[in-house]
Amino acid sequence: MSPARKIVTFDGPFRMHRAGGVLQSPTLAYETWGELNSARDNAILIFTGLSPSAHATSCAEDPAPGWWEDMIGSGLPIDTDRFFVICVNSLGSCFGSTGPASFDPETGKRYRLKFPVLTLEDVAESAWLVVQYLGIDKLHTVVGCSMGGMTGLALCVRHPESTRSFVSISSATRALPFSIAVRSLQREMIRSDPKWKKGNYKSGNPPITGQRLARKLGMITYRSAEEWVQRFGRERSTTHARIEDQFSAEFAVESYLENHANKFTGAFDPNCYLYLSHASDLFDLAEYGGSLDAGFRRLNLERTLVIGVRTDILFPLDQQRELAAGFEKVCDDAQLVELDCIRGHDSFLVEMDAFRPVLCDFLM
Amino acid sequence: MSPARKIVTFDGPFRMHRAGGVLQSPTLAYETWGELNSARDNAILIFTGLSPSAHATSCAEDPAPGWWEDMIGSGLPIDTDRFFVICVNSLGSCFGSTGPASFDPETGKRYRLKFPVLTLEDVAESAWLVVQYLGIDKLHTVVGCSMGGMTGLALCVRHPESTRSFVSISSATRALPFSIAVRSLQREMIRSDPKWKKGNYKSGNPPITGQRLARKLGMITYRSAEEWVQRFGRERSTTHARIEDQFSAEFAVESYLENHANKFTGAFDPNCYLYLSHASDLFDLAEYGGSLDAGFRRLNLERTLVIGVRTDILFPLDQQRELAAGFEKVCDDAQLVELDCIRGHDSFLVEMDAFRPVLCDFLM
Repeated sequence: MSPARKIVTFDGPFRMHRAGGVLQSPTLAYETWGELNSARDNAILIFTGLSPSAHATSCAEDPAPGWWEDMIGSGLPIDTDRFFVICVNSLGSCFGSTGPASFDPETGKRYRLKFPVLTLEDVAESAWLVVQYLGIDKLHTVVGCSMGGMTGLALCVRHPESTRSFVSISSATRALPFSIAVRSLQREMIRSDPKWKKGNYKSGNPPITGQRLARKLGMITYRSAEEWVQRFGRERSTTHARIEDQFSAEFAVESYLENHANKFTGAFDPNCYLYLSHASDLFDLAEYGGSLDAGFRRLNLERTLVIGVRTDILFPLDQQRELAAGFEKVCDDAQLVELDCIRGHDSFLVEMDAFRPVLCDFLM
Repeated sequence: MSPARKIVTFDGPFRMHRAGGVLQSPTLAYETWGELNSARDNAILIFTGLSPSAHATSCAEDPAPGWWEDMIGSGLPIDTDRFFVICVNSLGSCFGSTGPASFDPETGKRYRLKFPVLTLEDVAESAWLVVQYLGIDKLHTVVGCSMGGMTGLALCVRHPESTRSFVSISSATRALPFSIAVRSLQREMIRSDPKWKKGNYKSGNPPITGQRLARKLGMITYRSAEEWVQRFGRERSTTHARIEDQFSAEFAVESYLENHANKFTGAFDPNCYLYLSHASDLFDLAEYGGSLDAGFRRLNLERTLVIGVRTDILFPLDQQRELAAGFEKVCDDAQLVELDCIRGHDSFLVEMDAFRPVLCDFLM
C-alpha cells in the first residue's frame, strides 16, 4: 500500500446504477498532488483504465513511480505547480477502494460474486463523492484514459456542472462488439480456470492460469501488429533451444507475452478484474436520452479534447472521430488529435513524447 | 468419414523437414473431382487452411456440402468440367491423413505428442506424393487458402517444376508476430486445460474448455470489427435475461461466439490442432536462400495471383502486397487483387460473390 494513499469512507448506503444494487459505506482510495487554490477551481480529476491504482505519479511520501509518471508533476503537462490533481482508485478495484475482494461489513466475509453488478456510472459517482468531500464543486478538467474515458463521460452526462473541460484519451462513447468479444473471452478464461471456483478461490491460490491467458490476450489487443513487426519480427526466443517441449515459447513475441503475464498475475484480484471488465462493456452514452446525440446534448462542457491513436484496435480511430464529432455539436471548443503512434492502445502509457505536447497545449 | 474420400499409404519412412523426424508409412486422405485429361496437364491442387478436410465440395458419392462448395464444380470458377481438382487432407490433420491422433504402426498406440514436429514443408511434400501417385508431373495450378497459401509456397519453392500457376488467398510469405501471438495463445489455452493431460486426453474426454476458448479467439481474428459493428452493434443476447449469472453472454456477439465454439468443439482433434497451428508459425519463405528475395528467386511460376482482403487482421493487406511484389520480380504475369470485403480473414469462405469472379478470370 502506498504511503501517499488517502482513504475516505462514505457512511450509509451507496446505491448502484443497476437496479437493486447497494453497497454499505464504501471506501474510496485516492491520491492528490499539488494544492487546491483558494477559488477551488484548479482541480483535475483523472479516471484510470481498468487496472491502475490511484498512484498516478510519485510524491514525497511515495517516491515509487506512478502509472503516468511522465505526465503529472512540476513542469509536466498536468502541472502540479498549477493544478490540484486527484486520482481515485476505481470502485470495484482492489487497491484500497471497495470492490469484490473487500470485506462486506454486513457479513464479515469478502464480497466476491455477492458484489452487486458494477457499472462505470458507479465508478464515476463514487469518485464524484470524493471530489465533493475534498470541497470542490466544479473541476477544472476531467481526464479519462481508456475505460476511464467512458467513466469520465458517465460523470459529465450525469453531472453536467461537474467540470469545465474534458479530455478523453483512447476511449469511446461505448464499447463495440470487437472489444466486447475480447473482454468477454478474457473473463471466460478466468472463469474457466478450475481454481476460480465461481469466485471463491483462496487468496493464496487464485486462478493464475486464467489470469495469465487473459493478460496475454490483453497485451495482444493493447499493442499493435505494426509495433511487433518492428520490435520482434520473426526473432527467436533465447530460451527455446534449452527447452524440450516443442510448444514452449519459440519466438521472441511469445517470451514477451510470457514476461508480461508473469508480471501482472498476482497484482490484480481476479474477481475485481471480472467486474471492471464487465463494467467496460456495459457503458453506453446512448442510454442517456435514447441516442448518442441525445447523450451528447446533456453535456455542458466548455472545452473538450479527444486523443486517439491510429494503431489502436480496442478503441479505434473511428470511435475517436465519433466522440469528437459528438462534442463538436455541443461544445464550442472541441478538439480531436489523431496520433500516429505505433504502440496501439497502450501508447498513452508508453509514447509520452507524442502525448505530452497535446496535453500541454490543452492545459496551457 | 466421407464416402468420396480416397486413401493412399506410402510405404516406408517419410522424412520430416525438421531434423530427425520420421513417419513410418504415412496415409494421406484426398478427394478428386473432374477428370484428368490425356495430357495430364489440367490438375488443380488445393491446399486448405488449418481445419478443413479434403471434402472441398460435394459429389455424387458424397452430396454433403464441402468447405468451398460455391467455388468448385461444374460451371464454377474452379470448373470441374475443365479441371481435375485434388484436395488433400493435410498431413497432421485428423480427417483421414496421418496425424497426432493416428495410431503409430511401431507402437500400436496413438502418436499424440510423439508425433514429430510438423512443418508446412511436410504438408506440402506429402501432398506432392499424392499428386505424383495420381500420375501427374506438373500441376496446372496450386491454390492455397490461408495456411494453405504458405503450404503452396513451400511446394513451389521446393519443387519449382511442380506447377505452372499459383493462387495465394489470404496468406503470406511467413507469419508475423501478431499472428504468432494469437496462435501461441490459442495453443496455450488448450495446453492449459487440465483435461489436455500433456496430450494424453481420453478420446471421450478432450480438453473442450481450452478448445472453446481457442475457437472463440479464432473467430475474433477470423472476422472483422467492422463486420461485427454492422451485424451486432450493441444488440443484446436473447438468452441473457433468463440467466442469473451476470457474466453469462449478455451481448449478441457473445452468443455468436458461443454458438461457433459449440459447433467446432469435438470436430477437431486438439493435438492435431496444436501441430498444425505450430506449423503455421514456423514456415518462412526466407529460409530458402537466406532472404525473401532469395526465396522468391527459387520459384518458377508462369502466372501468380494474390488475393487479400482489406479487413483481414491475421494476414493483412501489407502481407498480400509483399507477396505480390515478390512474385512480380520473378514472374511475368503476377496479379494482386485487394478485395474490400468486411468479413476479414474468413471472407474467402463466406463472401463468395467477391471471390468467384477473381478466380474465374484467372482460370479462364
